[in-house]
Amino acid sequence: MRCFWDDRQRLHAPSGEFFNGAMHPAAEHPGRVDAILAAIGRTEEPVDFGLHPLLQVHRAEYLDFLREAYAHWHAAGRLGDAFPYTFPIAGRRPLKFSRIDADLGQYSFDTSTPIGPATWEAAYWSAQTALAALQAVKSDERTGFALCRPPGHHAGADYFGGYSYLSNAAICAVSAGKRVAILDVDYHHGNGTQDIVMDHDAMVFASIHADPTTDYPFYWGHADESRGSILNLPFPRGTEWSGYEPALVRALDWIEKAEPEMLIVSYGADTHEDDPISHFKLKTSDYAPMARRIAALGLPTVVLMEGGYAVDALGTNVAEFLSGF
Amino acid sequence: MRCFWDDRQRLHAPSGEFFNGAMHPAAEHPGRVDAILAAIGRTEEPVDFGLHPLLQVHRAEYLDFLREAYAHWHAAGRLGDAFPYTFPIAGRRPLKFSRIDADLGQYSFDTSTPIGPATWEAAYWSAQTALAALQAVKSDERTGFALCRPPGHHAGADYFGGYSYLSNAAICAVSAGKRVAILDVDYHHGNGTQDIVMDHDAMVFASIHADPTTDYPFYWGHADESRGSILNLPFPRGTEWSGYEPALVRALDWIEKAEPEMLIVSYGADTHEDDPISHFKLKTSDYAPMARRIAALGLPTVVLMEGGYAVDALGTNVAEFLSGF
Repeated sequence: MRCFWDDRQRLHAPSGEFFNGAMHPAAEHPGRVDAILAAIGRTEEPVDFGLHPLLQVHRAEYLDFLREAYAHWHAAGRLGDAFPYTFPIAGRRPLKFSRIDADLGQYSFDTSTPIGPATWEAAYWSAQTALAALQAVKSDERTGFALCRPPGHHAGADYFGGYSYLSNAAICAVSAGKRVAILDVDYHHGNGTQDIVMDHDAMVFASIHADPTTDYPFYWGHADESRGSILNLPFPRGTEWSGYEPALVRALDWIEKAEPEMLIVSYGADTHEDDPISHFKLKTSDYAPMARRIAALGLPTVVLMEGGYAVDALGTNVAEFLSGF
Repeated sequence: MRCFWDDRQRLHAPSGEFFNGAMHPAAEHPGRVDAILAAIGRTEEPVDFGLHPLLQVHRAEYLDFLREAYAHWHAAGRLGDAFPYTFPIAGRRPLKFSRIDADLGQYSFDTSTPIGPATWEAAYWSAQTALAALQAVKSDERTGFALCRPPGHHAGADYFGGYSYLSNAAICAVSAGKRVAILDVDYHHGNGTQDIVMDHDAMVFASIHADPTTDYPFYWGHADESRGSILNLPFPRGTEWSGYEPALVRALDWIEKAEPEMLIVSYGADTHEDDPISHFKLKTSDYAPMARRIAALGLPTVVLMEGGYAVDALGTNVAEFLSGF
């Protein structure tokens, strides 16, 4: 399987994230990719598909903001990474601000996703990596893998959060130019992808994830958000493969009925039993069977990396998953 | 003028607030009241009007949350004050969670307003103090002052933020049992009061405040939010009395046309030139003329303390304002 990665994706290196009332080391750090690169072997660099595919999904004002946010933060005399501190929870609407703090809150939903000097560059190349895998699948490959990092599935058309800045999955889906199903098997609900899918025909989205009444992103991913193009299957903490597999079968049946021409998989290895911030109990040996189930759909498939924070197990988990295709 | 204060309002003592990407000392701290108490002389303790007046304005689930949030935070093994870290910026709706972090974000909009072990008690007595001043005005006084602290004007029916937990002004307005105008002369827009006024007949709300394109709370307080019961008059940083006074006259004319039977003033001393987090340029000597203008409406008037963080000037500013009635 052709695998894509660009070294500029390393440049995003958050100094920390704010939760539990204090700053903590960032769970989503460049060290995650070393383990994956060592396990998957040769990767290819993406060509530059430019801004156009990003603009098909994200608002232009949002992309301008992402590109310039750190410079504005720095120009305001702030040190370190840019963090929001206040958020439009009521009546959010497009507003023009002349203060970086207002923009940061307008375009985000948490304090875990800082913007550093090279965040834009890393996120840009993460998206280009996804597009390169798409290109490979469109030309001649059955399956392609993009080592997207930073991840993408929490980013919406005009917001970042959950370590995500650009919606790699939706960018791929729109650029595919055909009817696409997105299957999200990260531990956390792909709220950004879901919000974008609601605004696009020719995309359907199925997600198996931790119950948002106990787990991030809390305000999205509930079963009652399911509708024609959305299937949310939330599961309790502690879920093992025996509980997960039937949900996967159900999601795949639902996808098959939608008759997509291509599949995009948002793959998070944070469903693994050792993940430090997640609470499912999948084992490394479950990932190949998971991939075989998915491959049995018989669709051209782009696999995109999302979460996974158990660095010691990460490489093996990703390699095991890819081996199932 | 009868002045009301309860020593339990001191018990809320945040260890810090998160903004500019780091923790900072809390601007809204118990030391603010010492300066005011020294300047205004004798105060009276409120009687306990109970929860009923609070429930006229706030959702019962929200009050339950406020009362129990710190215990849940502590039970989850967290240290220090409770802070939110993620927020429902899209599609906020009532949801039941079993995680304190989800509840904290569901009910708030910033990381500047922590919940400590006695926050509920202090906010409760801050509201009771407001009700005591209302009671005095209803019985025989022309004017009453409540040294509300924590302040209230950023708190909505089901959210806290901006150092505010309970909407002292709206609680007073509903308990007044008559047609009430709320005049907000704090530096910051009273977003919580505004949101509540939109849900209640028999209240109108006029606010003179810093332009939200540059100043907190950013997402509320824009001129285009004005409607039948709302008048927003945003002004740029650097505004002096010469620019402020005409706006005050305009707000008072608007209030007069609404024919209220009582006035509630949300008074913030953070319009003062020395305020460390605000940027208007009013002088101490401007507050008595401001109050005389307001008093000229000839309405029974309850004055509630909101912001004001220039502690050295705070007592004099409050005393000067009250002297104008």
